[in-house]
Amino acid sequence: MEDSLDYIYKEQKELSVYGGIAALLGWDQMTYMPADGAAERAEQTALISRLSHEKFTSEKLWNHVQKLMNPNVLGTLQKKDKAVVVRLQKDIEKSRKVPSEFVERISKTTTLAYPAWQEAREKSDFSIFLPHLEKIVELEKEYCGFIDLPGPRYNSLLDDYEEGMTVDRLKGEFDFLKSSLIELLEKITSSEIYEKQHGFDKKVSVEKQREICNVVIEKMGLPRNRSRLDVSTHPFTTSMGYDDVRITTNFERENPLFSFFSTVHETGHALYELRMPRDEYKNTVISDSPSLGLHESQSRFWENMIARSKSFWNLFYPIFKNSSPEYFKDLDIETWYRYVNQVRPSLIRVEADELTYCLHVILRFELELELMNDKINVPELPGLWNEKMQEMLGVSPANDREGVLQDMHWSGGSFGYFPTYAIGTIYASQLFYQLTKDNPSIYDEIENGNFTNILSWLEEKIHKHGRLMAADEIIKKVCGEGLNSKVFIGYLKDKYYDLYDV
Amino acid sequence: MEDSLDYIYKEQKELSVYGGIAALLGWDQMTYMPADGAAERAEQTALISRLSHEKFTSEKLWNHVQKLMNPNVLGTLQKKDKAVVVRLQKDIEKSRKVPSEFVERISKTTTLAYPAWQEAREKSDFSIFLPHLEKIVELEKEYCGFIDLPGPRYNSLLDDYEEGMTVDRLKGEFDFLKSSLIELLEKITSSEIYEKQHGFDKKVSVEKQREICNVVIEKMGLPRNRSRLDVSTHPFTTSMGYDDVRITTNFERENPLFSFFSTVHETGHALYELRMPRDEYKNTVISDSPSLGLHESQSRFWENMIARSKSFWNLFYPIFKNSSPEYFKDLDIETWYRYVNQVRPSLIRVEADELTYCLHVILRFELELELMNDKINVPELPGLWNEKMQEMLGVSPANDREGVLQDMHWSGGSFGYFPTYAIGTIYASQLFYQLTKDNPSIYDEIENGNFTNILSWLEEKIHKHGRLMAADEIIKKVCGEGLNSKVFIGYLKDKYYDLYDV
Repeated sequence: MEDSLDYIYKEQKELSVYGGIAALLGWDQMTYMPADGAAERAEQTALISRLSHEKFTSEKLWNHVQKLMNPNVLGTLQKKDKAVVVRLQKDIEKSRKVPSEFVERISKTTTLAYPAWQEAREKSDFSIFLPHLEKIVELEKEYCGFIDLPGPRYNSLLDDYEEGMTVDRLKGEFDFLKSSLIELLEKITSSEIYEKQHGFDKKVSVEKQREICNVVIEKMGLPRNRSRLDVSTHPFTTSMGYDDVRITTNFERENPLFSFFSTVHETGHALYELRMPRDEYKNTVISDSPSLGLHESQSRFWENMIARSKSFWNLFYPIFKNSSPEYFKDLDIETWYRYVNQVRPSLIRVEADELTYCLHVILRFELELELMNDKINVPELPGLWNEKMQEMLGVSPANDREGVLQDMHWSGGSFGYFPTYAIGTIYASQLFYQLTKDNPSIYDEIENGNFTNILSWLEEKIHKHGRLMAADEIIKKVCGEGLNSKVFIGYLKDKYYDLYDV
Repeated sequence: MEDSLDYIYKEQKELSVYGGIAALLGWDQMTYMPADGAAERAEQTALISRLSHEKFTSEKLWNHVQKLMNPNVLGTLQKKDKAVVVRLQKDIEKSRKVPSEFVERISKTTTLAYPAWQEAREKSDFSIFLPHLEKIVELEKEYCGFIDLPGPRYNSLLDDYEEGMTVDRLKGEFDFLKSSLIELLEKITSSEIYEKQHGFDKKVSVEKQREICNVVIEKMGLPRNRSRLDVSTHPFTTSMGYDDVRITTNFERENPLFSFFSTVHETGHALYELRMPRDEYKNTVISDSPSLGLHESQSRFWENMIARSKSFWNLFYPIFKNSSPEYFKDLDIETWYRYVNQVRPSLIRVEADELTYCLHVILRFELELELMNDKINVPELPGLWNEKMQEMLGVSPANDREGVLQDMHWSGGSFGYFPTYAIGTIYASQLFYQLTKDNPSIYDEIENGNFTNILSWLEEKIHKHGRLMAADEIIKKVCGEGLNSKVFIGYLKDKYYDLYDV
């Protein structure tokens, strides 16, 4: 038994090391790698994935885990060891359902699909991506056959990103969310204030943007000796190790606030990674988030609930103004705060405002679900996409580049991923509601740039659990109930009724 | 036989992939990694080294190579396959002489020695590094026992970096080099011009330095889609793959020319890496340089022979002046050219001028040789270092930081490495001599910023051979003779007699 325990810890440690290497390969590809390095990078990444997958699904590891899962043995284990063994057993069992031959097949398909998607997007020509996407959809269906969870096929995809989540449950939440958001949006877009609102076409230099991003990172308490900020096309967070968590942003977007909010967003992710249970669970399957939705709750929490609040801008408006006095000439704090929270139905998900964002997600969820239920097929996607955009947001893409081709997820075979963006957003509102109940002076603290209590609260309520419980259980423990989009809608009404005087 | 060939190519390919991953781990550590990432990075690097070493020394690979080495088989192989098999056999045989247990032991020792060296250097306290260095020296001796080449122990170390080079041969070259350099230096330092020469204490901004570095990279023809320039404490070149070769420089040194010459130097290395025989030998043991000395010949060639020439500054002086007019006010091209080539005995190897540089190398060679011959021991090093500095260069370190502790090489167990810096410098002068014979219009081409012919010449004479021949054989083929320091001394006399009017 001791041997088996030693063995599973040794192997988990090595798997963590593989994970860190894979993260570096990915990070470098998105940030600094010279263009022609892509082909060799694909081979490097594939090698590490293969070695890691072989180790994780090996007979030897499986047998040791099985020994420890024997009720007579499991009962004698310490709490920590038991949690690790049970979690490991579940993870490996799932991995072993998928044949290596299939893993290689889907990896090859997506490796070819990604550049095809890039080209299709650039040329706004869906037909270039179509044959690849058709193959991927078929592979995803095949994958569902291996996992084979009860209920609709899509359950088997959802479970990869949001363990335990089902189509039934999600559809309930999303149907309510969708109709409430559309209703809310209609109220706002027909308001007088909406009629009069307008954007700013001034630019802020990259250097100024970077300066402000570094200020907010500092204030949020991201330890610089364990992190970095770099630049990539799409912002992301990745962990090379427990003490090396990196975020990226992008300074080239039209809106000068894009880099700022994406930095805050990714810093939220990074703080979660950096505050996982260290001493007890480092280098085990527990030292992770239980779901992408819960991970997203951390980024959305900081991005929306904190950084789009009035208190936050009482703190940051002077900092911004001081950094770019030209930009803020004739722009008072009230006007600025309204601008930061402007609702404006638009075409691109990653640039959407807080209110319309989830509609973009629901659109993708509905399409994915119907694809998996064999109700629609791939060639219909562009048309259906545009119809749904019109139906939900009242806008129509001029071309597929700003429509069905805008996200890279499908090219990588990430079906079932999009819903976690909305789940995280809902969780974030639930957490914020609870935080303000637990600590009513939170607004003052934000205004004073004191984020210590928020950070400790998140650590105590979320981070310290790692993967010991399911996401929904953790939320239930903190907020008294699991996923509930009503809380999110309540939060939005409270904020936007006021902003738009409806 | 077909199977064995397939197998050895497959394994070499995978070893190349490991090599690229290891290179990225190292590059990132020296450029962007957050400070606290070091411990986890050491584990990542160790894992890749172990996997790679296991593969390279495996029974299976060895057996396939042995099959192919059978004279009845070897005779039937195509030229290319034969070269690969013979080279592979030699490399593996050497690797298999060293027990894995020893590899792990030396890796652990140097992992601890590196931070000890850093601390010792920072505090200028040799005693902190002493016990580590003593262990390393013992391990190096043990290593020589495994390799066990004929002659002095040090031969077994030299061979790792400069295959086929022996103490006998090197001592002959270095003794001549040393006395000639000292004699030349004495003439220069007692000249009138030397008496009057002085430095410039103006600074050039990092941005201007970067701008100029990018100009020279462009002109030298480094393909940007296959390379990058970044910043690290010590400049270096590394290959993540055939199409991803990266160089670094440092903009923080006192002398604004440090970043420029180190960029030229590393670009010389990178051009070699990027022009290895691609189609035929990529992902085999042949697609590499036969020795560090030959690699260094490429960097020194560009740094010294090209970039410190008068023709080069006829091209670059206006570019520099245009970029930093303030700096170049009252500084005419003649004064600048003399400044660029100023001889000035100094303490730090990496900042030494073209003429005194090799004396720094010979000093280290002599100490290493005596350590390995059991003539001296580690505690004597600081004193002997200072004596030799005084004897060869007429300067004395004020402390060990600017003396025996200045280089990181020994902390990593790289004994036998330093001589390659001088070997490369000598080779570079031999190549340049031959180039000017082959193409007398080379100076005009440099002055016109046309480096195409130089590049093609180097590719034809050096790069295209990869590791098909030994370094000395390649030089012999190109220049009619192997390593010959007389050519280097001739080059120096020609240049510096003129500059110092002696």
